[in-house]
Amino acid sequence: MSAIRLPQRGWLFDLDGTVYLGEALIPGAADTIAALRAAGRRVAFLSNKPLYTREDYADKLTRLGVPTRPDEVVNSSIVLARHLRRLDAGAPVFVIGEPPLIGELRAHGFEVRADADVRWVVIAFDRTFDYAKLNTALQAVRRHDARLIATNPDRTCPTAEGEIPDCAGMMAAVEAVTGKTVEVVVGKPSPIILEVALQTLGVEARDCVMVGDRIETDIVMGKRLGLATVLVLSGITRADDPRIAELRPDLVVDSIRALVS
Amino acid sequence: MSAIRLPQRGWLFDLDGTVYLGEALIPGAADTIAALRAAGRRVAFLSNKPLYTREDYADKLTRLGVPTRPDEVVNSSIVLARHLRRLDAGAPVFVIGEPPLIGELRAHGFEVRADADVRWVVIAFDRTFDYAKLNTALQAVRRHDARLIATNPDRTCPTAEGEIPDCAGMMAAVEAVTGKTVEVVVGKPSPIILEVALQTLGVEARDCVMVGDRIETDIVMGKRLGLATVLVLSGITRADDPRIAELRPDLVVDSIRALVS
Repeated sequence: MSAIRLPQRGWLFDLDGTVYLGEALIPGAADTIAALRAAGRRVAFLSNKPLYTREDYADKLTRLGVPTRPDEVVNSSIVLARHLRRLDAGAPVFVIGEPPLIGELRAHGFEVRADADVRWVVIAFDRTFDYAKLNTALQAVRRHDARLIATNPDRTCPTAEGEIPDCAGMMAAVEAVTGKTVEVVVGKPSPIILEVALQTLGVEARDCVMVGDRIETDIVMGKRLGLATVLVLSGITRADDPRIAELRPDLVVDSIRALVS
Repeated sequence: MSAIRLPQRGWLFDLDGTVYLGEALIPGAADTIAALRAAGRRVAFLSNKPLYTREDYADKLTRLGVPTRPDEVVNSSIVLARHLRRLDAGAPVFVIGEPPLIGELRAHGFEVRADADVRWVVIAFDRTFDYAKLNTALQAVRRHDARLIATNPDRTCPTAEGEIPDCAGMMAAVEAVTGKTVEVVVGKPSPIILEVALQTLGVEARDCVMVGDRIETDIVMGKRLGLATVLVLSGITRADDPRIAELRPDLVVDSIRALVS
């Protein structure tokens, strides 16, 4: 019989640095998640990356040994599509982003256009970003006073080859040339992504744990909405980080493996 | 005999909005410049645009009726190349910019590289800007702590088809992903471009006039270095702009034509 170290019913896990590192599962992750599920806890996975679909994430987790359904994954693409549907359903949008995000927006009823005749410019981590897209964003703002919304605030994204430019680069370029500010960024540490995740789990914030490796996003966001928080040291944050004493996560553990004994 | 409205020996003219608008000379510009030259005044032309060579500008002015030699033109490419030569002659550089800037840097002895093994990232108005260049800039900063220098701070550039994204977009993207600040921007309103122009003319600041249509660059920069300033209303600044009363150019005229009677 396994002992779970926190009593909450809902468990939200960051992915990269927490459940896996690139293509390798963190040792013990499969057993920990299986034990939580066996004990009736509800589990979902959170990612700021808009580069893949929920199906892609579910496939990857399943392949690595954590059987997962697409509706157990919440990433910034799906959150942006849902949030924008509340703000302006069916609006014409121009997307600085990759095909999975465009697909998600189409699936949520938006008219994704290649020109500047739009009400929104959606800005995301986009490895195909270029001057033509930047110009279309500028024209959308100049001609239609288009509003700006973005998936995630990250400066860089860690990869096996090192860090590469993330959504902050695209946001800064658009803000600089348009003189307009991005009004909503839905990804971590925004409460918007966390609210979608809590709905997915069907639990209240106070009955939920946020587990992640980034103190400035995972832990800050969890604390802000009243979740219990667990910092894992298997990813980007080091044990001697001075912010740990300041922010005081409920638990600090070497890795996800230590959540169940 | 023509009467020139200011006594200074040196005359610096902004180009777009002051001497021409796109492909059309401002009426009276050719006669005004000819009268200044005939009276022994020294004339040079200033542009923040790094998209063309000095030869391109001289050809255009000559074609429009203002005979001009390349060494009478000072633009942000030549100023950047000269300034960087003082800071770090012959350095390996990565350029976010177009071929005329790259040519100017090579002509000044720099090793222009396509990879991240550089000491400087040069950032300019670049209509071929893309994610790969942004990533190379990031890697240069991460691996070699490369320094950042830029041609001009403009958000947008006016064209016959409307405004398009200018250097501020490229700078903001690089600053956002690298977390590093551009340490020098050589173009207007920086004193650096004005100092190169004064050297070109061979006159002191107090014996020189800056003529331009942008109050926030041409007039601010001229005032800061102690030049006489003339605001022309043939370009972007309107007669009812509240900054005119605040900054008090020495003369405010409808166009360059009014400088000589």
